[in-house]
Amino acid sequence: MDYMDPRGLRDAFGTFMTGVTVVTSHDKNGNPLGFTANSFTSVSLEPPLLLVCLANSSSNYEALTQAEGFAVNILAEDQKDVSNTFARKVDDRFAAVSWKKGPHGSPILSGVSAWFDCSMHKIVEAGDHIILIGKVEVYDASTAPGLGYANGAYVTPSATAEALNKTTNLVVSAIIERADEVLLIDDGQGGLALPEITADKSGATIALNNLIASTGLGAQPGFVYSIFEDAERERQNISFLCKAGDGLPNLGSFEKLTEQVLSQISDPAVASMLERFANENSIGNYGVYVGNETSGKVRAVNSKG
Amino acid sequence: MDYMDPRGLRDAFGTFMTGVTVVTSHDKNGNPLGFTANSFTSVSLEPPLLLVCLANSSSNYEALTQAEGFAVNILAEDQKDVSNTFARKVDDRFAAVSWKKGPHGSPILSGVSAWFDCSMHKIVEAGDHIILIGKVEVYDASTAPGLGYANGAYVTPSATAEALNKTTNLVVSAIIERADEVLLIDDGQGGLALPEITADKSGATIALNNLIASTGLGAQPGFVYSIFEDAERERQNISFLCKAGDGLPNLGSFEKLTEQVLSQISDPAVASMLERFANENSIGNYGVYVGNETSGKVRAVNSKG
Repeated sequence: MDYMDPRGLRDAFGTFMTGVTVVTSHDKNGNPLGFTANSFTSVSLEPPLLLVCLANSSSNYEALTQAEGFAVNILAEDQKDVSNTFARKVDDRFAAVSWKKGPHGSPILSGVSAWFDCSMHKIVEAGDHIILIGKVEVYDASTAPGLGYANGAYVTPSATAEALNKTTNLVVSAIIERADEVLLIDDGQGGLALPEITADKSGATIALNNLIASTGLGAQPGFVYSIFEDAERERQNISFLCKAGDGLPNLGSFEKLTEQVLSQISDPAVASMLERFANENSIGNYGVYVGNETSGKVRAVNSKG
Repeated sequence: MDYMDPRGLRDAFGTFMTGVTVVTSHDKNGNPLGFTANSFTSVSLEPPLLLVCLANSSSNYEALTQAEGFAVNILAEDQKDVSNTFARKVDDRFAAVSWKKGPHGSPILSGVSAWFDCSMHKIVEAGDHIILIGKVEVYDASTAPGLGYANGAYVTPSATAEALNKTTNLVVSAIIERADEVLLIDDGQGGLALPEITADKSGATIALNNLIASTGLGAQPGFVYSIFEDAERERQNISFLCKAGDGLPNLGSFEKLTEQVLSQISDPAVASMLERFANENSIGNYGVYVGNETSGKVRAVNSKG
């Protein structure tokens, strides 16, 4: 089968959890370049080899295929902003981060979990991407836990543990996603809202299960997407990202997160979170996940990034 | 550089978070085979390609290099046992799980986050591994969140959120690891123990930070490794896996988790957890992580698996 619905396939690929890397090198004029990628894997210990995939359509394709080497920077859990900087259109990505030239020549970012400064070992053509196999010349690792990525959203196990452990006056909401749409309900005042529920002593995940059951959808509780405090109402919000199967919801409907839809969401904090979600999700699915940092946004949402 | 200390390099590679897959195929006699691997990445959408790395020394090397195809099963968060079954020496791995023959012929496991039944597209030699590039012929995905793996241990964000949210009478312990050794302290009664602390209202992660500070080590709080209830003492234990930098600890010493050392740990639940850790960590670093399911255990620990 040569053609498959790219969205369905991309979402299926996205169930595999990954870390997040920034791959760096230089163009032929010696200018540093870098892009966010999660299509990375270690390959061999002796000799030390790793690989990363790059889209044929990438603006860095020419530079990378001619480069003598590249570095892979494995981002730490607190480096979401670095991931976003190197995944979006930013005029000077390297001005936004702390970095130095690595021992083998490619840019090394500060504060990462590990970095590998590589020579180019082999380039393999593979469909709409190339596989860059690098030979590790010099590397270093820190004790910082890594940033994760799954189903088009960041996974931050340590930050989540910290936040969940502090919760009081807890409101649980669910970003229930299906085919690039999110379940939104009528907030009773002419606006839109996420399904939400106040957690009692039994905790956030019991509340989430009850919330999902109330939608009538065969959705499964997923990872924590966002935690934010609502200072005005003195409450803590935890939002879980859940994937829905087929079927009609009891309440509300699945909507694309267009600018027009986002403008109808009555809670500004929720609107802001969903705007970020729409942006990260589009970066993730078309950019981070398949390693093509050149693809544009797929949802009509203004980026504040 | 052709040679690097394999342990240091492996640990640096291990900072990149991954999902966990079981790769399946058939031998030339038509018998199903499968092994746990995390050296997976998606490659291309059109045509649909993915890759997985396999050690040249693998007992499945011959079968896979001659196979017409293979399947990649992305394990769900509740499938640690499946991962362990396909990573250890088990007489009949397929007898231990629910599976069926996939549409393209390779075994598909039940309950996974996604599966991809592939034809063989290309095999690339790369150091001590080969890269198997598969062309996705048929696939399916569920709504189940995936199992994660980082730094030689499983990452289970949903299960962790659930457990942390329920905690009362909370005891926090730290598995502080450095170079395949774990910090153990004198329990004051002639035995060994993990550093531990009782959490107060400020929560588990504040307690963990205090605990790490008390060791005098430059260790960073890592992910939750294990949560278990101590029914007898009516308390809940959360154990965090942390990586230490250089320097001497204020208390205790770093020890390899040999059978002899494990036998000195006074708390049976902690001993059992560390035995599991030693096993999973050796599977992970030599087996799961670099995709070589044939390597034996590196620590002298009896497996109960």
